[in-house]
Amino acid sequence: MTGPRVTGPSVTDRHVTGQRETGPRETGPRVVVLSGGVGGAKFTLGVREFLRQRWPDGEGETTAELSVICNVGDDFWLAGMRITPDLDSVMYHLAGEADTERGWGRKDESERVSAEMTAYGVGWPWFTLGDLDIGTHIARSTWLREGLTLSEVVTRLCARWQLSTKLIPATDAEVETRVRVGATEMHFEEWWVRLRGNPGADAFVQPGAAEAVPSPGALAAIAAADVILVAPSNPVVSIGTMIGLSGPASAVPGIPGLRDALRAAEAPIVGLSPVIAGKPLRGMADICLATLGIEADSAAIARAYGARSAGGLLDGWLIDEADAAVELPGIRLLQRPLLFTSLAETAAIAADAFEMALAVRG
Amino acid sequence: MTGPRVTGPSVTDRHVTGQRETGPRETGPRVVVLSGGVGGAKFTLGVREFLRQRWPDGEGETTAELSVICNVGDDFWLAGMRITPDLDSVMYHLAGEADTERGWGRKDESERVSAEMTAYGVGWPWFTLGDLDIGTHIARSTWLREGLTLSEVVTRLCARWQLSTKLIPATDAEVETRVRVGATEMHFEEWWVRLRGNPGADAFVQPGAAEAVPSPGALAAIAAADVILVAPSNPVVSIGTMIGLSGPASAVPGIPGLRDALRAAEAPIVGLSPVIAGKPLRGMADICLATLGIEADSAAIARAYGARSAGGLLDGWLIDEADAAVELPGIRLLQRPLLFTSLAETAAIAADAFEMALAVRG
Repeated sequence: MTGPRVTGPSVTDRHVTGQRETGPRETGPRVVVLSGGVGGAKFTLGVREFLRQRWPDGEGETTAELSVICNVGDDFWLAGMRITPDLDSVMYHLAGEADTERGWGRKDESERVSAEMTAYGVGWPWFTLGDLDIGTHIARSTWLREGLTLSEVVTRLCARWQLSTKLIPATDAEVETRVRVGATEMHFEEWWVRLRGNPGADAFVQPGAAEAVPSPGALAAIAAADVILVAPSNPVVSIGTMIGLSGPASAVPGIPGLRDALRAAEAPIVGLSPVIAGKPLRGMADICLATLGIEADSAAIARAYGARSAGGLLDGWLIDEADAAVELPGIRLLQRPLLFTSLAETAAIAADAFEMALAVRG
Repeated sequence: MTGPRVTGPSVTDRHVTGQRETGPRETGPRVVVLSGGVGGAKFTLGVREFLRQRWPDGEGETTAELSVICNVGDDFWLAGMRITPDLDSVMYHLAGEADTERGWGRKDESERVSAEMTAYGVGWPWFTLGDLDIGTHIARSTWLREGLTLSEVVTRLCARWQLSTKLIPATDAEVETRVRVGATEMHFEEWWVRLRGNPGADAFVQPGAAEAVPSPGALAAIAAADVILVAPSNPVVSIGTMIGLSGPASAVPGIPGLRDALRAAEAPIVGLSPVIAGKPLRGMADICLATLGIEADSAAIARAYGARSAGGLLDGWLIDEADAAVELPGIRLLQRPLLFTSLAETAAIAADAFEMALAVRG
């Protein structure tokens, strides 16, 4: 925000006066995005594009620092490989390697290994792993077995791609989201991919989450952030599994230290509604929200996230034009089209979210 | 040998009189092959073809029982996958899935996963793993991690292919062949594939081999065998790593229990020379033999294997027409062309080896 192109006020005084513990710094702000998988990945692309336009470094990149704190609740071990769907979605999108037509995995993908695994009777036949994707899984699993933390592994994987974005797992602990359906319990991916959320979940549980600590990188990014944005990801199984979310029917615990860190952050926090015209933008957010007893509408989700002034998450909230602008005590509202129709439009949405954050603290 | 097509005498009395602990049995004999990788695989194909011709079951298969005891000294863990080159060579050849033009791996293979691994900096860039092959490695490694023995894993893998042959690892222990070159020591595959045997090895060592026990299947197959054939595999790093081999310069220890079981076997043991016209049939047997101080000629190899009557391995020895028929005390010799020019020719070689075994005990 010290760059000449900034029109809004500074987000924090410490930024302007240079009172940072890290010494002299770049001119762009430090932006953190909380993200799930594909939806968060697309939003992050827009944020990166916005930062490149607003704080260009003259070489096609930006002097701003973008960090993405990513959900790891979908992660699991399969056939000796650690699979991290949301981290991979963000990495592949930022790398320009995502299959945007299919909506998941790598572009130009093949599935020869998966076919062999199925022929031998190994793995989950309903969970197809692409060959290129398996290369990533093998690298990740190798480094995890060598004793690296997930954060260190993600940094190594991303080093190949030059993302100009720091990708950070919410925690280095293996905190997997499980789903209770009647008397049975299964991994989230089994319920999501194999059963496609049918029958609905009675509860989401996160064994070990209460004792898990945020990754060091997540804590550092939150503490140093000038602006924190909450992507329009699934509020329950992408955002809620990181920060916790309670409804009248049930709750996901999230990682307590991450919620605490966000509450203590100096940066304003602005979220984007994942619901447009009363319908979830993607995925099956409505089914997940129903498990918690939260209605699938923008206002209900914002209330569940809560106002920071009341111990919750949000300073500001972006909702679509098609949704009612219900007044929410302590949460500033901005209404605009929220569909990611193009990278330019997503960057414009990110710009508005950023400007709102400036305004909150201005 | 109880079938009407058998012209030779019975191999063992117990066979004819039915004094087997396993009760009524098939009419074909029980044949065991000791094998390394590709060379042993090709020989095994010939043995299976011979048995199908000589003891047909009327449905394209044989009433004989063929077991292959296979070297595991080349095995290793790479990027979280247990690789078993010799077992796979035999399995793929018997399954009709081997890439016979390239000489290793699966036919119609691709290498997309390997390229990704290399891009991330994981694995051995000089050791390319095919995509189909990786499917096998992932299945194997999954089952090993679940606690299955290697023997059980091999049985599961082979179940997919209908080999009509029992493939048995020499041991379920992880006994890997390592190579001493000057002051350094490396895995056999690194010396073999990356360095291509140059510089030559000062010694082959097998950590843990002295304490390793043969797989239960190997012991059972040897005890029940009517005929045991030693494939023309590398005498040092394929056969020697199973049964031990000593030369004036150094020795490979092998698995003591396997050598003992072979010495105690009632079945005759006939080997095939891996050297034709003074040159190794394939691979770099001469370099390996030099490490032990054994000359790369048929007579020297037979002497190193030793006569059973003198506590060694062999009752009979097949050598090529181009090699000198040096008389070897206690070892019967048969001279014939030994090149595997076609499946029919390899079957004819197998038939001669089998006939020689009958003659030894006739």
